[in-house]
Amino acid sequence: MSLKAISSKDAAALDKDLMEIGGWSLDQLMELAGLSVSQADMRADKVEVYRVHPLSSGKNILVVCGPGNNGGDGLVAARHLAQYGYNPSIYYPKEGKNELYQRLKTQLNNLAIPFITDFGEALKSTHFIIDAIFGFSFGGPLREPFPSIISQIESTSIPVLSVDAPSSWDIQEGPPKEGPGAKFMPQSLISLSAPKPCVKHYRGRHFIGGRFLTKAIVEKYGLDLPQYPGIDQVLEIGVDAEGRL
Amino acid sequence: MSLKAISSKDAAALDKDLMEIGGWSLDQLMELAGLSVSQADMRADKVEVYRVHPLSSGKNILVVCGPGNNGGDGLVAARHLAQYGYNPSIYYPKEGKNELYQRLKTQLNNLAIPFITDFGEALKSTHFIIDAIFGFSFGGPLREPFPSIISQIESTSIPVLSVDAPSSWDIQEGPPKEGPGAKFMPQSLISLSAPKPCVKHYRGRHFIGGRFLTKAIVEKYGLDLPQYPGIDQVLEIGVDAEGRL
Repeated sequence: MSLKAISSKDAAALDKDLMEIGGWSLDQLMELAGLSVSQADMRADKVEVYRVHPLSSGKNILVVCGPGNNGGDGLVAARHLAQYGYNPSIYYPKEGKNELYQRLKTQLNNLAIPFITDFGEALKSTHFIIDAIFGFSFGGPLREPFPSIISQIESTSIPVLSVDAPSSWDIQEGPPKEGPGAKFMPQSLISLSAPKPCVKHYRGRHFIGGRFLTKAIVEKYGLDLPQYPGIDQVLEIGVDAEGRL
Repeated sequence: MSLKAISSKDAAALDKDLMEIGGWSLDQLMELAGLSVSQADMRADKVEVYRVHPLSSGKNILVVCGPGNNGGDGLVAARHLAQYGYNPSIYYPKEGKNELYQRLKTQLNNLAIPFITDFGEALKSTHFIIDAIFGFSFGGPLREPFPSIISQIESTSIPVLSVDAPSSWDIQEGPPKEGPGAKFMPQSLISLSAPKPCVKHYRGRHFIGGRFLTKAIVEKYGLDLPQYPGIDQVLEIGVDAEGRL
């Protein structure tokens, strides 16, 4: 399957169009984006296997959230994962300030989902990591505490799912030449709405989610509309041997 | 499977709790409710069959929306159904006035989903009806144009999915003794959050959706937490021979 990439500038304009012209609220978009993230888990893409061996790879999921909308997608994903029977915990060292993020926190608190503060300690009992630190609007450089966090995620053997882009990667250019993230290659990546240009450097399982684009939006931004099967909110797409989508 | 019912008074209090204490917005709740409705379609409950014979029972779905939140759930469901490849159209004779409903209309307009005005004419080319007219807050009596609409839905042979309750039914007591709706028995019903007491009069396929309750809410209202499989947003539950859940 081939899907065109969208630049970070266009991705921002697309979000703005959805809200200003399309009538979408951030609540709605983030709900569907986070739902897709929660379903892109390695164990969820084959529904039959998932049903036969639910949660069999370990229930403890550490969701690492950044201060912006990528982090918000992670918070929504954690809520859904708790409903599926996983034990998510959240590391959210730089909380977003707007009221939606605060409401998402309340929703998670009401599900008794812990917000942890000792990242290194939490890693010891984690079976799966969701990297919801930075998305398409990341422009660098990494600020504390994220250089250390990304170094730890980069060097762990725990499988990682990155949301929209591997955090620390330049959205156009891919991984940094050196420092934290230079060797970061998550096992899975979920692109929201459309892949970002940096996926040409990505090797791993690649999903797409955010099933809410219209034909007009797809045409305006020169994208492909993913052919999601049935009622699925997430789709696995391939990366070929040369890294082309 | 056995699930306790919730009275309309408690259902209203539960919604209020979710928003005032739980941090949920109506946008978020309606998104997940409408998503569940879109997936409760007769053809979607067996994922494998759905994938092998997608849309095979006919693509034209008429979504009949009332002026309140039940209608809003229908609008969200229609949006998702369009993404799945169905051709929904909307009959929305008494539009809700708040800005969320207006934004939902904009979202549907952007997907070129038609709002029809001739209900009888639309019925002729419809393969499936979603009854999103009235939900748990319905207290009767039916006002125009709904007596005529419900009479037509009641007497058609087109399969109907009702959202939360068959419209015209009293939420506690079930179908009216006479007049429009007295013989209304939709082929499918999706209860949102919890079944309403009127389901004891219901005979047909029964689904539950709205996968967002917390243990605290379930305990407060004396409900059962449905055991949704895997990542599913909807679950089929049985009604026994005596109509007990």
